[in-house]
Amino acid sequence: MFSFQTRITLAHTDAAGVVFFPRQLELAHTAFEDLMRHIGWALETMLTEGRWLLPVVRAEADYRHPLRLGNELTIGIGLQRLGDSSFTLAYTFTHGGHTTGTFTTTHTLLSAEDFRPRPLPADLRTALTETLAEA
Amino acid sequence: MFSFQTRITLAHTDAAGVVFFPRQLELAHTAFEDLMRHIGWALETMLTEGRWLLPVVRAEADYRHPLRLGNELTIGIGLQRLGDSSFTLAYTFTHGGHTTGTFTTTHTLLSAEDFRPRPLPADLRTALTETLAEA
Amino acid sequence: MFSFQTRITLAHTDAAGVVFFPRQLELAHTAFEDLMRHIGWALETMLTEGRWLLPVVRAEADYRHPLRLGNELTIGIGLQRLGDSSFTLAYTFTHGGHTTGTFTTTHTLLSAEDFRPRPLPADLRTALTETLAEA
Amino acid sequence: MFSFQTRITLAHTDAAGVVFFPRQLELAHTAFEDLMRHIGWALETMLTEGRWLLPVVRAEADYRHPLRLGNELTIGIGLQRLGDSSFTLAYTFTHGGHTTGTFTTTHTLLSAEDFRPRPLPADLRTALTETLAEA
Repeated sequence: MFSFQTRITLAHTDAAGVVFFPRQLELAHTAFEDLMRHIGWALETMLTEGRWLLPVVRAEADYRHPLRLGNELTIGIGLQRLGDSSFTLAYTFTHGGHTTGTFTTTHTLLSAEDFRPRPLPADLRTALTETLAEA
Repeated sequence: MFSFQTRITLAHTDAAGVVFFPRQLELAHTAFEDLMRHIGWALETMLTEGRWLLPVVRAEADYRHPLRLGNELTIGIGLQRLGDSSFTLAYTFTHGGHTTGTFTTTHTLLSAEDFRPRPLPADLRTALTETLAEA
Repeated sequence: MFSFQTRITLAHTDAAGVVFFPRQLELAHTAFEDLMRHIGWALETMLTEGRWLLPVVRAEADYRHPLRLGNELTIGIGLQRLGDSSFTLAYTFTHGGHTTGTFTTTHTLLSAEDFRPRPLPADLRTALTETLAEA
Repeated sequence: MFSFQTRITLAHTDAAGVVFFPRQLELAHTAFEDLMRHIGWALETMLTEGRWLLPVVRAEADYRHPLRLGNELTIGIGLQRLGDSSFTLAYTFTHGGHTTGTFTTTHTLLSAEDFRPRPLPADLRTALTETLAEA
């Protein structure tokens, strides 16, 4: 399982004193960006080259325990589904030995020319399966 | 169906030129805040009184069409499920005659004393069922 | 003076129970976007046409009173300085009859071709001076 | 000079392809949180203990070069002014050997009881002067 470490900042929190729920998906996406950079598919390169788009088409979020300012957070990423032109990642958030939440994002690979799905290139398929445990 | 109007600002967008996906849940929550204020359960009052908490325990997001800077957005809210101590709302985002995405948030009512679930008060149950169409 | 109405949402707040200070500049920019749309210089059109850029090169923020969830906010915009290729706007935030903060943003007009400053077009100069009071 | 390392994520960017200007103050504040934790004045402890507040009463931002997705960013913090009950920090953002922007935040120490300024405690004064270079 690929793992990413971060810390909760004031910018993540809301007036209820905890992390505002949509920001946990922001944190998941930051871990995803780190994963993609790690396997040679940095999003910044994709944006600059203008060949591929990889939008999130679906996301799920299950919140178990609130996260608070200063909390150290570990985000583990597993591969839940590898389709023809899309894949689903599963994120497990851990703080202080507890799973605080679980999340999924489903990404579809689109051509930037016609915005239509394309089969995932072999090197991306291989990198995802070799880097990530099944989730 | 309860309805809320808003507009996409630069703060919602990302370097891919569209609304960053977690921010659509922020927009859904803004519509939820407006709903709660409308039915006499303003979140600001809940925070000040310190009796109840109403955290989001689960959220789902399905993205169909990207939203861009300046887009006018209508967010319709329906009632998908009304449980004993929790409820699920369904949000339909519409822009230019198209459904651009659908979202759900599930909220559990907790006592601020012991952080344990409590039955939804009768006036909240009535307000939700009378204000919202089934979704 | 050009004026814009909005309301503080949970997304603006932080764990200290008030609006997180950088988000007040986000709110100021939302008012700026509304102003630019009003005078025929919508930022979304600028982005699509790809001829001009209008980045913020400087911002100042003075915070007098905290803003909280649910607060109704009026943002007045005045023209503080109109230069050759740049201008400074002054924002006054008002809630409940009090000025809660004052802000400025300085924008420079750049050509999207070479990222160098260009003189402000006459129609933009006229629109800014006719729409905005001196600040 | 105290220094903090971070990286630009998609959540920081906007549809113009660069970091949205108010988010640079969010990044500065994240560095500030790290500084305060380092000198034994963690904001999370302040919030939990409920004795002190340390709001930002003024901020300045000067943007020289845009920051983009994936950019590695170093934030240096210096002490610009140490007053009786307030202090001003100066932040220098560096990427790829260039200063991309400079920022200041002025913080006032308030008692959480009456929201009135209090003299900065001696240990905080000492920690700020010993940890930070003059700016």
